[in-house]
Amino acid sequence: MIIDCHGHFTTAPKTIHEWRRKQLDSIGDAAHAPKKSDLVITDDELRAAIEGGQLKQQRERGGDLTLFSPIAGQMGHHLGNEQTSTVWSELSNDLICRVCELFPDNFVGVCQLPQSPGVAPANCIAELRRCIEQLGFVGCNLNPDPSGGYWTDPPLTDRSWYPLYEELVRLNVPAMVHVSSSCNPCFHGTGAHYINADTAAFMQFLLSDLFKDFPDLRFVIPHGGGAVPFHWGRYRGLSFEQRAQPQPLEALLANVFFDTCVYHYPGVEFMTRVVPVDNILFGSEMIGAVKGRDPNTGYFFDDTKRYLDACTNLSTEDRYKIFEANTRRVYPRLDARLRARGGSAGQQKQPVLD
Amino acid sequence: MIIDCHGHFTTAPKTIHEWRRKQLDSIGDAAHAPKKSDLVITDDELRAAIEGGQLKQQRERGGDLTLFSPIAGQMGHHLGNEQTSTVWSELSNDLICRVCELFPDNFVGVCQLPQSPGVAPANCIAELRRCIEQLGFVGCNLNPDPSGGYWTDPPLTDRSWYPLYEELVRLNVPAMVHVSSSCNPCFHGTGAHYINADTAAFMQFLLSDLFKDFPDLRFVIPHGGGAVPFHWGRYRGLSFEQRAQPQPLEALLANVFFDTCVYHYPGVEFMTRVVPVDNILFGSEMIGAVKGRDPNTGYFFDDTKRYLDACTNLSTEDRYKIFEANTRRVYPRLDARLRARGGSAGQQKQPVLD
Repeated sequence: MIIDCHGHFTTAPKTIHEWRRKQLDSIGDAAHAPKKSDLVITDDELRAAIEGGQLKQQRERGGDLTLFSPIAGQMGHHLGNEQTSTVWSELSNDLICRVCELFPDNFVGVCQLPQSPGVAPANCIAELRRCIEQLGFVGCNLNPDPSGGYWTDPPLTDRSWYPLYEELVRLNVPAMVHVSSSCNPCFHGTGAHYINADTAAFMQFLLSDLFKDFPDLRFVIPHGGGAVPFHWGRYRGLSFEQRAQPQPLEALLANVFFDTCVYHYPGVEFMTRVVPVDNILFGSEMIGAVKGRDPNTGYFFDDTKRYLDACTNLSTEDRYKIFEANTRRVYPRLDARLRARGGSAGQQKQPVLD
Repeated sequence: MIIDCHGHFTTAPKTIHEWRRKQLDSIGDAAHAPKKSDLVITDDELRAAIEGGQLKQQRERGGDLTLFSPIAGQMGHHLGNEQTSTVWSELSNDLICRVCELFPDNFVGVCQLPQSPGVAPANCIAELRRCIEQLGFVGCNLNPDPSGGYWTDPPLTDRSWYPLYEELVRLNVPAMVHVSSSCNPCFHGTGAHYINADTAAFMQFLLSDLFKDFPDLRFVIPHGGGAVPFHWGRYRGLSFEQRAQPQPLEALLANVFFDTCVYHYPGVEFMTRVVPVDNILFGSEMIGAVKGRDPNTGYFFDDTKRYLDACTNLSTEDRYKIFEANTRRVYPRLDARLRARGGSAGQQKQPVLD
């Protein structure tokens, strides 16, 4: 089957954005803060948003299942405060849960965390647990810069993150490293902040002992890993220069994985030649960062399955890993769900070249 | 000839670092501030630093000439204040001038600017003029984030930069977009901050009308353009989505160029297939970001000429452009110097594959 590890509910009904605006407008004015119950979205509205958007494109592109999370750019951890972030995360995750219940064959939930700048990541544990244990989600998005582009919180390798990592390991779920929007005028959201965060996070991991402390912790770095594959030699070189704990780059590869949200064929083909195939997970971020069609081809920029299908260097086994097996391995709760449904990890569609 | 557009004086005698430390230690204590004349470095010391370092490697790798600038990581615009930055820049640029006078066939100067966070870039014009008009330099390094990793100054497309750009155009010199070290624990200097700045700058350009206002302004984005080539499709897609001034990515290519500081063969080969060859300038950043040898090959990671030599997709004409002609076109004052010396832009070494 074809599993897209990276999708956001970017087609959510606009009433949710109105609710959020009211919430942010009422900061410091609790009497006017909207309640979660003020947001009314019917199942029909959810069906329309999905059937005309993500599901339509999933089907047209030949996908089967998407790991689905709230809109990354709207997580807005830098807006409001810890309390607003908590309520907003619950509301957003609940909506994802409803989509996954309406379309259980096509979407499986990944949660947003109620992060807030300067607030201990441990405070996200309750919502993480709720989403994984009660809502049936299989992973989370973890924002390495809750400040929204000013990078004022500690790196991902700081010990303040450790309680959250302990819980990720206990729950046996990975985190996708994913920033939200940028409020820094130097950084365009999807064009700079997203990519830079991916690159920065990888380098943080490279400098650290994090995976000695957490050998079972797993991160997915989206957007092809930012600049990392293009600069694989730089990272290999730097990995040998870390005097305190020199370790080859390859030591990270038991814990760090990359999706394929790279929006041109040469980039995806290059990635599959540089990054070990066991570390590549199919992802498209559809419908998301780049919504249009390439005027040269008429195809959507973010139809990354097409690029993978066209990679003649990939064997059938490689494709099976990228499109299904790696994601089931990195997200064991997804694998368990699919097995319970009757699809073993051995089942596989023949990849189709177009 | 083989022109490396990107070299820093990383082998400078350590007395310069001691001088700088004293300068920073005396902030707010003018009586103890070192004078420029306190730094004594003999010509023999300079010769030893260059002959055992940059010149040795230039010769071993088959290079002819390097555009040479002060150590990027030591520009430290976030340290001290405008006054210390001015004195430090003058001192650093003077040292580059001496190297270029000692080795006029092998090194041509590129200057550091006396930037400081929150200070108008126009204040750098005097030192820029001095370096170009009096010291014979052919370009400058321009720091898009003088804060050292917190990005608190406006983007490169802000009008506060315009007076400096007017001077760059008047002098007919390009700027290499190059940050200094990072004081933000989230960003490793050469592993994250450098690459992220390259990516962020490109996206700033993509969003702007800068080159409508300055059709003759030219930037070189180092380190292969950060993540840009790997995400060329993302940037092409985003270029069509800018509602205010949609323009294809290609519209930037009269003004924006990329060096080849990408430290593995697949990355360089990929770059030459994605970025138009007219926009690629040979650069190695030698001796710099990654100093070691690849244990797999025994060669230096930053010997980027080897990677280019091995690119079978490049024609002789392509190599001539990347190794010489593009850099002479982007740096017209370099071209004028070489012509005066008797080397026309048509002269060319046959590339050697190894």
